[in-house]
Amino acid sequence: MGRSTKSAADVKLGEIRVRGFLGAATRAGFKYRDRDDLAIIFSEKPARAAGVFTLNKVKAAPVLWCHEIITRNTPVRAIIINSGVANACTGTRGYLDVATTTNHVAGAFKIKKSQVLVASTGVIGEFLDTALIEKALPELKKKLSPNSWHDVASAIMTTDTFPKIDYARVNINSKQINILGLAKGAGMIAPNMATMLAFVITDVAIHQNILQELTRAGAAQSFNRITVDGDTSTNDTLIVLANGAAGNKAIASVDSDDCERFREALNGVLFNLSQMIVKDGEGATKHVEIRVIGAVSDREAEKIAFTVANSPLVKTAIHGEDANWGRIIAAVGRSDATIDPSGISIYFDDVWVVNEGMSRGKKEEKAAEEVLKRNHFVITVDLGLGTSHASVFTCDLSPEYVKINAEYRS
Amino acid sequence: MGRSTKSAADVKLGEIRVRGFLGAATRAGFKYRDRDDLAIIFSEKPARAAGVFTLNKVKAAPVLWCHEIITRNTPVRAIIINSGVANACTGTRGYLDVATTTNHVAGAFKIKKSQVLVASTGVIGEFLDTALIEKALPELKKKLSPNSWHDVASAIMTTDTFPKIDYARVNINSKQINILGLAKGAGMIAPNMATMLAFVITDVAIHQNILQELTRAGAAQSFNRITVDGDTSTNDTLIVLANGAAGNKAIASVDSDDCERFREALNGVLFNLSQMIVKDGEGATKHVEIRVIGAVSDREAEKIAFTVANSPLVKTAIHGEDANWGRIIAAVGRSDATIDPSGISIYFDDVWVVNEGMSRGKKEEKAAEEVLKRNHFVITVDLGLGTSHASVFTCDLSPEYVKINAEYRS
Repeated sequence: MGRSTKSAADVKLGEIRVRGFLGAATRAGFKYRDRDDLAIIFSEKPARAAGVFTLNKVKAAPVLWCHEIITRNTPVRAIIINSGVANACTGTRGYLDVATTTNHVAGAFKIKKSQVLVASTGVIGEFLDTALIEKALPELKKKLSPNSWHDVASAIMTTDTFPKIDYARVNINSKQINILGLAKGAGMIAPNMATMLAFVITDVAIHQNILQELTRAGAAQSFNRITVDGDTSTNDTLIVLANGAAGNKAIASVDSDDCERFREALNGVLFNLSQMIVKDGEGATKHVEIRVIGAVSDREAEKIAFTVANSPLVKTAIHGEDANWGRIIAAVGRSDATIDPSGISIYFDDVWVVNEGMSRGKKEEKAAEEVLKRNHFVITVDLGLGTSHASVFTCDLSPEYVKINAEYRS
Repeated sequence: MGRSTKSAADVKLGEIRVRGFLGAATRAGFKYRDRDDLAIIFSEKPARAAGVFTLNKVKAAPVLWCHEIITRNTPVRAIIINSGVANACTGTRGYLDVATTTNHVAGAFKIKKSQVLVASTGVIGEFLDTALIEKALPELKKKLSPNSWHDVASAIMTTDTFPKIDYARVNINSKQINILGLAKGAGMIAPNMATMLAFVITDVAIHQNILQELTRAGAAQSFNRITVDGDTSTNDTLIVLANGAAGNKAIASVDSDDCERFREALNGVLFNLSQMIVKDGEGATKHVEIRVIGAVSDREAEKIAFTVANSPLVKTAIHGEDANWGRIIAAVGRSDATIDPSGISIYFDDVWVVNEGMSRGKKEEKAAEEVLKRNHFVITVDLGLGTSHASVFTCDLSPEYVKINAEYRS
């Protein structure tokens, strides 16, 4: 099945529109003094909302709020997003601050409080100053525009080094469907900045239960397959809004061709955003796919891939451009998945280095060192047991990562 | 129960003797050119042997050999140890090289092949040159001495910065029992140097099944409670030899007072060795106890303590002397143990920083920063759920760690 979608590369950022969606960003003054730190995504019509949220048992107040709204399956008109303060570990006052925020936004934009989603990213344990939001709302409303997405993506950044935007376009019943994604990272790695946030807006008409299912499945193959340091944050949020403004016949079944086309385009956006987060991992210089094949189940393949991808010894070896397969095979061995050490093969891109759990020789190891010099490569571990497989995407561990995270609050 | 034991601090290293045990170290030339890299621990009489080994499914050849010998419960006369080459991921040839090594040692020392244990630490995936061992054995035999333990502990080092030795003495039936422990680390963190090795020799008379049970239980509370980077190696080994030369009535029951006294002394040695490994963690500047209390079970407490102790964000914050409790509570939340975020308290030594999952204030956070400046401190997480608890010992994550592990083979 060929990709019929247009991607971000084909369309100039300033030309991207998603019918019925407006955005704006401004400076509220939470923590960052010289940049925007408050943004809104606004839908002219009520939009279907789907979402997936952090599995951390310590959940930030805005995550609890969004989860409740989306579970109720009521339409959404706006997402208000701030950077600098995570509003996590803030107790009852944290929930009240979310309620106050939704009140202010509802008042300013003449919508219902229950139509306002809230997302926060920043320091854990500090309270959100809702007066700053109230004060900034008139400016935010004035700046609302259909092509402000670069500003929105920039305002939600914390330690990110670049704004993360992706776009896809697909035709359904001769209607052009636009899908725009915005994200901030840098994954679970951001220092005491807790968080990954991602927002997707689309003008497709679709039933909410279908949208939720596509969101869940799409996240499983994108945001849930990346790791920078294995530290799941308290605020991780992915929200997808669909307002139906494209005018297609609403997608009502996951098995339809229409749904398949939309799914493919949506998954592309989710995947691309997730890869941007890995590439922007703090201190990262390498973008690496850990591919485990020949496993007895996909679940076991994923477990092994994550153990390798999170190993500090593997990640420092990657940073040092050292094709240190011993550390990889040791990580495979300590995952509690089913393996047979004497059946393992390891490849760096197309260089086959390990066979039957042993080195194939110095020549192959030399060739693998050349692969490690690349900015992007694939490490394939073939367990030789079955036909299941999984890929996880990660980056290297550099002294810069430690420096950033050790010195952040000093 | 007061400690009746003498520790290493009370006795000069050169005066330490364990009756009937001799040791020696020499330069075989595996990898390190300017230092000893081969050592032997030799018992004049057959000794009972107990051991615990890596749970990594990829096990080095010497680990498989030792496990087999100890499971058979046959007496042991010698442990031959090399540093520089791990003899892991070496397939059938790896096993043959172990067999060849035991043959050489048996021949040189006039003992049985099955009485020779073998331990290796070093690079994974390279073959052990047994000819170097054969060549070095006459020198090793010539140097055998009852007070060569500093030399032995030094010869088994890889990236360790100091030799790790501990000693305890206890009286049982008016007989003085000596317990000497030797270890190398630096935990699971040693770069492509796979490994932790620890050896304990004692002249106590004890039944093998009791010795094995004490060894297993002692390791669970010492070596299995430390983490530097969570990377379990392929070669981790703890072997305890007891030759009965002290002449006490053999310990035959775990419930006896005699056993209790020996257990206490042995556990002290195991614990002290394990702490030396954490203190010598690569690039480590802090030695930190993560104590989880108020848990619903010891197992859950341990799980949470390990999640906190292995979190790169927590470890970098410790390095930066930042009392960043948000990262600690986020790590607690992502462990899959039972918790209630609003019931969590956190202390840095005696400074109470978090109550009911929220900051107690800026003053307390300031006081906690002072605690972080210490070289050793305790982080206590009180879950407020039950009466179970566990401690795990870890170190900080420094840029130096990354540098050592990235540049090791270059």
